[in-house]
Amino acid sequence: MYRTHHCGELNASHINQTVTLSGWVHKSRDKGFVAWVDLRDRYGITQLVFDADRTDKNLMESARGLGREFVIQVTGTVIERASKNPNIPTGEIEILATALTVLNTAKVPPFTIEDETDGGEELRMKYRYLDLRRNPVKNKLIFRHKVVQEVRNYLSSKEFIEVETPYLIKSTPEGARDFVVPSRMNEGQFYALPQSPQTFKQLLMVGGMDKYFQIVKCFRDEDLRADRQPEFTQIDCEMAFVEQEDILNAFEGLTRHLLKTIKGVEVDAFPRISYDEAMRTYGNDKPDIRFGMKFGELNAIAQHKDFNVFNKAALVVGIAVPGGNKYSRKDIDKLIDWVKRPQIGALGMVYVRCNEDGSYKSSVDKFYDQDDLAKWAKATNAKAGDLICVLSGKTNEVRAQLSALRMELAGRLNLRNPKEFAPLWVTDFPLLEWDEDTQSYHAMHHPFTAPKSEQISLLNSDPAAVKADAYDLVLNGNEIGGGSIRIHDKTTQALMFRHLGFTEEESKSQFGFLMNAFEYGAPPHGGIAFGLDRLVAILGGQETIRDFIAFPKNNSGRDVMIDAPAPIDKAQLDELGLKTK
Amino acid sequence: MYRTHHCGELNASHINQTVTLSGWVHKSRDKGFVAWVDLRDRYGITQLVFDADRTDKNLMESARGLGREFVIQVTGTVIERASKNPNIPTGEIEILATALTVLNTAKVPPFTIEDETDGGEELRMKYRYLDLRRNPVKNKLIFRHKVVQEVRNYLSSKEFIEVETPYLIKSTPEGARDFVVPSRMNEGQFYALPQSPQTFKQLLMVGGMDKYFQIVKCFRDEDLRADRQPEFTQIDCEMAFVEQEDILNAFEGLTRHLLKTIKGVEVDAFPRISYDEAMRTYGNDKPDIRFGMKFGELNAIAQHKDFNVFNKAALVVGIAVPGGNKYSRKDIDKLIDWVKRPQIGALGMVYVRCNEDGSYKSSVDKFYDQDDLAKWAKATNAKAGDLICVLSGKTNEVRAQLSALRMELAGRLNLRNPKEFAPLWVTDFPLLEWDEDTQSYHAMHHPFTAPKSEQISLLNSDPAAVKADAYDLVLNGNEIGGGSIRIHDKTTQALMFRHLGFTEEESKSQFGFLMNAFEYGAPPHGGIAFGLDRLVAILGGQETIRDFIAFPKNNSGRDVMIDAPAPIDKAQLDELGLKTK
Repeated sequence: MYRTHHCGELNASHINQTVTLSGWVHKSRDKGFVAWVDLRDRYGITQLVFDADRTDKNLMESARGLGREFVIQVTGTVIERASKNPNIPTGEIEILATALTVLNTAKVPPFTIEDETDGGEELRMKYRYLDLRRNPVKNKLIFRHKVVQEVRNYLSSKEFIEVETPYLIKSTPEGARDFVVPSRMNEGQFYALPQSPQTFKQLLMVGGMDKYFQIVKCFRDEDLRADRQPEFTQIDCEMAFVEQEDILNAFEGLTRHLLKTIKGVEVDAFPRISYDEAMRTYGNDKPDIRFGMKFGELNAIAQHKDFNVFNKAALVVGIAVPGGNKYSRKDIDKLIDWVKRPQIGALGMVYVRCNEDGSYKSSVDKFYDQDDLAKWAKATNAKAGDLICVLSGKTNEVRAQLSALRMELAGRLNLRNPKEFAPLWVTDFPLLEWDEDTQSYHAMHHPFTAPKSEQISLLNSDPAAVKADAYDLVLNGNEIGGGSIRIHDKTTQALMFRHLGFTEEESKSQFGFLMNAFEYGAPPHGGIAFGLDRLVAILGGQETIRDFIAFPKNNSGRDVMIDAPAPIDKAQLDELGLKTK
Repeated sequence: MYRTHHCGELNASHINQTVTLSGWVHKSRDKGFVAWVDLRDRYGITQLVFDADRTDKNLMESARGLGREFVIQVTGTVIERASKNPNIPTGEIEILATALTVLNTAKVPPFTIEDETDGGEELRMKYRYLDLRRNPVKNKLIFRHKVVQEVRNYLSSKEFIEVETPYLIKSTPEGARDFVVPSRMNEGQFYALPQSPQTFKQLLMVGGMDKYFQIVKCFRDEDLRADRQPEFTQIDCEMAFVEQEDILNAFEGLTRHLLKTIKGVEVDAFPRISYDEAMRTYGNDKPDIRFGMKFGELNAIAQHKDFNVFNKAALVVGIAVPGGNKYSRKDIDKLIDWVKRPQIGALGMVYVRCNEDGSYKSSVDKFYDQDDLAKWAKATNAKAGDLICVLSGKTNEVRAQLSALRMELAGRLNLRNPKEFAPLWVTDFPLLEWDEDTQSYHAMHHPFTAPKSEQISLLNSDPAAVKADAYDLVLNGNEIGGGSIRIHDKTTQALMFRHLGFTEEESKSQFGFLMNAFEYGAPPHGGIAFGLDRLVAILGGQETIRDFIAFPKNNSGRDVMIDAPAPIDKAQLDELGLKTK
């Protein structure tokens, strides 16, 4: 037995007990007559003491030979500490060592194993096994475990059944790119890794499983944007005999449960807004509603006043920045530069200072009088002391620009409190979205999403106007989940594939099994999937997911610790009937 | 809302309530004036009644038009049933229908949706979504879910942390064959799918995670034997600062918890035997100990008696078949034919009848007298009325043959009671095993298993004699788990790789990250992995795993439902820089 206790549990109640601990040498101090070692394990830190009066001389020497991160086993007596440390649970005691075994030595780690380390990202990833010893990383993984346990226990208590779906499935070129797996037993053929278990969970509904969930890895071979991983984890859920309302209620329940048990936060019924309203009010389909700064559309009041920039714009829209009137001219110029950066792309910005005395001062005073500006203030809900920022241009572009400005300013104003949680349902997403690259419509959610039944007839005349029973769950400005009611009859599914540009042959070869299944009594069904990595990060009050993943890949899809991917033997390729170019 | 209740919950307490149910038409009977429909969902079956006196005429007509597996929604009043069915929870009531909506029609299913179906294996797999509607399959998946929930909750309560390890890792040709995944972003390079998260869980121990588990898919590209799957699920566990004893106790705890909560069976401390003893006593390293029929080695008493077959054999060994003396001469001849089948491969079988009067009658009376045979009876623990079966030959071969005979006879004698659970630890496995094909030693468990420290010196002189701190958990004759104490220092790991025939370069390129990690303070550690598919099947009292997997593959590794693997587009291959031959 390597230990009687772990390094986080001993306190005054254990004084005079003989104990054995094992762990890592976190730190040591040597004052000549006395040497202290901080012994660390997953559970905490316990101070060991070796002193010339009470400790055997050889033992004292051994203690002095210990390096950082050595793995040791120590036996000793729990004694009261002279100078207590109230900041750690074991701060009342220390261990007067009577025996010491070095279980393993350690080279000097390439970065410090401290909460604030001197190691850069690349180094930390290469030595991830050392990085994991640091509290911030370790605690995030333990936090993730707790979230996942709560999810499973909650869904199980609601009669959801976790069913494992296969990882070796079939490639479907629609959507993102698949990772493929060559089959040796079926030469020239390939499996694909699932981008999600979408069709399988629908088949489980056809199979009568009624309520399904799975916490499951999914794979997408995309060019990686920052903070995206080629493999990621999804809480994947599906229910039969449900309408949208049933699903929103079920997963609002899950999310409320998580907020309560994990964060101790009680949230009322989640607000809901339509996709159109979200775009109009926040310029964004995943608005952060922890703060206001809602959009005020100004077309009706700001156009036709000789200001040509606005007159020729499809949309003139502003937000009120709380307390923004205190910004200097220089501050505002910087803000204008910020929105003109290529990443944002605005051509300029009009602003209105809302003075404390109720008067207004704008950058377009030549065109607008105090009455006009008062109307702008009303539309943007600006108060005395605020600054109104107005952008104009093409509708989608200007909304995206103003949304970026809104988020940036909220960040600067500390309005994005990581301890506050503001969930929001966004509903009624468009069924299709126009893709400029391919000059065709794509499914906004996926090809299995049901159009609103009363709008199916619009598919031919005005495809972009067709809305779907599709919804996203947004938390603090991040999409944490998304889903839809699915098509459950072959005719509608075939219609949908046709509108997405599939030939009949293509839809049959790729999704024939699903369309066949729909002919044998498919129930109405729908579902949702949560991005677990993101959900856990947001619950943890963080914006980046990487440290909530034990062994993440870098932006080139590489695992720099194990050095993968890597070339494989020619013999392996031969067995698979493959050649590299 | 599609339903107010599900089909398994209504009983006498709901009489007179108006309810809405949804589900599948399981069966219908039409007696002219009255028609009944059994409505089925995941939760049960509820009887609907339509009768000419009380039901609207059009509704009656609609009910008559319902086909098997139609999906319908019905509203009606709960009434008391005239002839109650005590076999189902809803057997006291029926629903007098007042409204009926067909939610989806169904073609006639290719096999009956009944507990005992007329569908063959291949057909059931092709239409797995229909097969899942059958109770035996559905219940096995729900059972699996319950087992998995218990595993997770138990391990979590013991401070194990579930950590997800990556699926896109690095190919290591050692061991079974990897499935590989070509990387598009790193052309000419490949990921591999994990055969197990072995090295990652060890790195988590180096990283201080202390207690890890994960329920995780693993992948092996092997020629499939019956009841093997290319993707399978493992309960993967690892602990730091532990000796073998700690691990056995921890996972005996888990297994006992499962037996108690899932099966209601209380099991005492699990017996333990060494690998050598298991081979000697049962001819098998995963003995079924629900019954006796232990091996009796007869070399000392049966050799040197002019019976040349025995004299030239390395091993003469027998078992006593309880009550076997009642077998006719013909029965015994059949048994001899059975052991001589090529699958078993024995050259013959000697037998001894143990008569009720205490005398013996053997097939080798010419060579052995009653005293000799009495000694055989003692060695095999045979009693009056038993039959002793004796095989001889090369040690390993004859043990395997007699073990097969023991299992076969136990099956015929109904000694393998699926409701009885007899777990067993087998310990002290050899570190290495000789591979005839490659004429070299392979790791019996895996290359990370620690040799018993006092035996390391034998590695050069007598490698086959070196034992490891490796153990299997056996349940009812199946290995359900296996693990070991791991090597945690670079020197021993390098030594091990050398003995397994790795060049220094190979071990560095494949496992350099692990050997490096060992230099930065690796703690002593060890673990175990359970085959979940098998564990669930055995707990479910079944020998085959296939119906405990929602969407299994066939023996050619194909998913016949979705028809995968399949050829992929040339464009996809081009992007990956690959050509098929």
